[in-house]
Amino acid sequence: MFLVLDGRGDLYAQVARALRQAIEEGRLATGARLPSSRQLATDLGLSRNTVVTAYELLRAEHAIDSRQGSGNYVAVAPAPRGAAQTTQRTAAASRYSARMRRLPPLRLRPTLPQLRFDLQYGEPLVDPPLATAWRGALGRAVARCDLRYGPPAGQRELRAAISEHVARRRGIGCSADDVLVVGGAQQGLGLAARVLLDEGDAVAIEDPSYQLAEMALLAHGARLHATPVDGEGLCVSQLPAAGVPMILVTPSHQFPSGAVMSMARRRALLDYARHHDAWIVEDDYDGEFRFAGAPTPALRSLDDAGRVLYVGSFSKLLFPALRLGFIICPPGLHDDLIGAKLLADVGSPAIEQLALADLMRSGAFERHLRHATAELRRRRAALVDGLARHCARHVLVHDSGAGMHLVGWLPHWSAGDVEQLVQHALNRGLGLHSIGPHFRRSPAPAGLLLGYAGLSAKQLGAAAQLLGQCLEHARTDPLP
Amino acid sequence: MFLVLDGRGDLYAQVARALRQAIEEGRLATGARLPSSRQLATDLGLSRNTVVTAYELLRAEHAIDSRQGSGNYVAVAPAPRGAAQTTQRTAAASRYSARMRRLPPLRLRPTLPQLRFDLQYGEPLVDPPLATAWRGALGRAVARCDLRYGPPAGQRELRAAISEHVARRRGIGCSADDVLVVGGAQQGLGLAARVLLDEGDAVAIEDPSYQLAEMALLAHGARLHATPVDGEGLCVSQLPAAGVPMILVTPSHQFPSGAVMSMARRRALLDYARHHDAWIVEDDYDGEFRFAGAPTPALRSLDDAGRVLYVGSFSKLLFPALRLGFIICPPGLHDDLIGAKLLADVGSPAIEQLALADLMRSGAFERHLRHATAELRRRRAALVDGLARHCARHVLVHDSGAGMHLVGWLPHWSAGDVEQLVQHALNRGLGLHSIGPHFRRSPAPAGLLLGYAGLSAKQLGAAAQLLGQCLEHARTDPLP
Repeated sequence: MFLVLDGRGDLYAQVARALRQAIEEGRLATGARLPSSRQLATDLGLSRNTVVTAYELLRAEHAIDSRQGSGNYVAVAPAPRGAAQTTQRTAAASRYSARMRRLPPLRLRPTLPQLRFDLQYGEPLVDPPLATAWRGALGRAVARCDLRYGPPAGQRELRAAISEHVARRRGIGCSADDVLVVGGAQQGLGLAARVLLDEGDAVAIEDPSYQLAEMALLAHGARLHATPVDGEGLCVSQLPAAGVPMILVTPSHQFPSGAVMSMARRRALLDYARHHDAWIVEDDYDGEFRFAGAPTPALRSLDDAGRVLYVGSFSKLLFPALRLGFIICPPGLHDDLIGAKLLADVGSPAIEQLALADLMRSGAFERHLRHATAELRRRRAALVDGLARHCARHVLVHDSGAGMHLVGWLPHWSAGDVEQLVQHALNRGLGLHSIGPHFRRSPAPAGLLLGYAGLSAKQLGAAAQLLGQCLEHARTDPLP
Repeated sequence: MFLVLDGRGDLYAQVARALRQAIEEGRLATGARLPSSRQLATDLGLSRNTVVTAYELLRAEHAIDSRQGSGNYVAVAPAPRGAAQTTQRTAAASRYSARMRRLPPLRLRPTLPQLRFDLQYGEPLVDPPLATAWRGALGRAVARCDLRYGPPAGQRELRAAISEHVARRRGIGCSADDVLVVGGAQQGLGLAARVLLDEGDAVAIEDPSYQLAEMALLAHGARLHATPVDGEGLCVSQLPAAGVPMILVTPSHQFPSGAVMSMARRRALLDYARHHDAWIVEDDYDGEFRFAGAPTPALRSLDDAGRVLYVGSFSKLLFPALRLGFIICPPGLHDDLIGAKLLADVGSPAIEQLALADLMRSGAFERHLRHATAELRRRRAALVDGLARHCARHVLVHDSGAGMHLVGWLPHWSAGDVEQLVQHALNRGLGLHSIGPHFRRSPAPAGLLLGYAGLSAKQLGAAAQLLGQCLEHARTDPLP
């Protein structure tokens, strides 16, 4: 217990005064238990009698209550002092802060009232065996973890497991040394920006794109070159002819449009990077989940020039609350990226890294992926069926056969129409999410981002039915 | 399993060719188990017979072995392709990278051979009941954790527990809303730098200071104004007369000198900040551990002008591998700091946050702190006694009565003398750490940073004896 004595008068009175002040300032809340007189005496280096006398004084003032055999408690206390302080923002202290303040409101998920169904993208697939496996892996990891500072690039075991994983599943040849463990894909992108970009440098991003990545780049001070995406992914021919230091892409399953980058575009993009000494940041956020067609090779697996930073995440493969991801570093940037991670936060938490390595080594991770892929395939089919049955008059579904969401395009709808639809659906208990805000071009194409990982197949069927009703209500002229 | 088929000839031959390539490129290591034919057929969308035929072909070539009843394994494979790639660094891509490359080698701990005793600062106090409590808390946290994206500022429960903790132990009045959970003090400092400093801005730091903090600021592009520290802490009168945007201090227990900032200096520093609109970053890295004398109020608890960012860490209170810390945000910077955290990594891992909140709420955390304080007091006393007995002819001990290390000054020693001592001690199995590299002034005062948390009282006595022998060997002229 922290108390400063003011040195005036008797010691017991000083202790009482200090306690009274702590109560008045809200540092001791109503009902909070005071330390025992023995403990407080030890803390303050005083005799126990001094503290006993101070407590008696406060009891006499009704500032504290004593309950038989269970110590002393604060009787009445005002609101915490912190609450009374000003909450006015100061002027932005740096250009970074100024840029951040100009961004649209930063929200991960809109705060929605209780909904019957929310077609939110980014909800994890709930899988009870995974939680059980994770709990066991964490327990084992605590027992064997070195609790000191670990290597900034990540635990060796996890780096090895990740290099095997990307070799098997994404065709990437790399060693454990090339792997940098980071706190999710967002940190991976941020470290890449630190290492690659000065304030004012240009970055090519996809249009549409992932908002939180875009915001991090804008706050960093990058100038964004929004490059259109079509059915084959990024339109490489529309990249700046003069080159650009960094290109951020989601080739496996473009976010949010769902396009899978064609092999021709992949080759063209790698050629562009080689020719212009550009760095490609490949965000493979959900490339694992593929339900049909041939697997697409990661850009990193085709990259002979060492220009690709492959960023992977466990947010979609396991769950977002984990906050673990990785970069497969190109050799030329290896030391810079690890140095930036060390300076950023010394390294990611060790116990969860070991638990993840355990899960990957034991086969539980592969089992979960197989289960999740099968389950997502079922859910996706239920949503596609439901949309065909109930929404086909309005919605054009782009079926890329991958990921955890699909896009229902609404051709010829205006932004205002979509907004009304979202509001009406909300009133009926259905959470919808417009793809509009992900576009930088204006007017943005109209459509809905339909996430299917967080609802069961049955719920998705019912949600599609409800969506159909909302569409009919919002708009009567169907697709041509 | 990831394979790209080249589309030439029979399907089974394509599969075999793709597998052969994966083996040659090291994506499938020697001894690696191949997926079952059923699984691979599903993955590739082929019939099972096609895969069975491909496996037979590879077995005939001795590229894979089949073991009775347990699947197919890679027979021989070259070294992974990643290892063969160039590891040459590219030119620095940004000014950040260029600055980082100019820093001294970034190492958290020197890699030392097996030592009998290492007086390394930063080793945690090993406490088996803590590991048991942590394991239990993690298990409970998995069960109740929302596995989706959480609030970027941190889990509500943990923020509340931290605000109560700093009120009780450090005299800080704040609400849960003022608390931002971060990935350790290093991230706290980095976010502060992002929000407060443009490239080229000045920062006042203590001389001597913590190297990793200094390096992060240098990489950020800050100009460092090294301000001397004496027995009363930072010499406030030597701060730039014109003001400075940010001041980084360790007032509770100056790192590494051990000085506790006097009340007069605290008031003077707060006055300086108010007068010059400077921000104070208060790094209270081990202020909890105090063994004698009155507790010192945190700067934040004396700050009426809202100029202090209080940065706390659980690395010393629990263990460094945890990577959790917090900022008590001043109201004017609250939104900027939370925004910077969101953009940096979306938020810290949720399960460990809930486990920590559980530990703090249940009383296990307070019990650990009491145990750790008592144990550190014992260890410290053993080291101080040992130094008095064996090293008093050479070493001047500065006894600040706090923290997890003390400084043994070596008056009149040269840097070369200290280096020889460290090398000699190393040869005799004693790990010593010079305070010299923590100073920016030149010549740096000579001394040793003696960490005592990682060794038992008995070991510390023996280490002091060994140190005495090393001192006698290294240098024969004792203190005047």
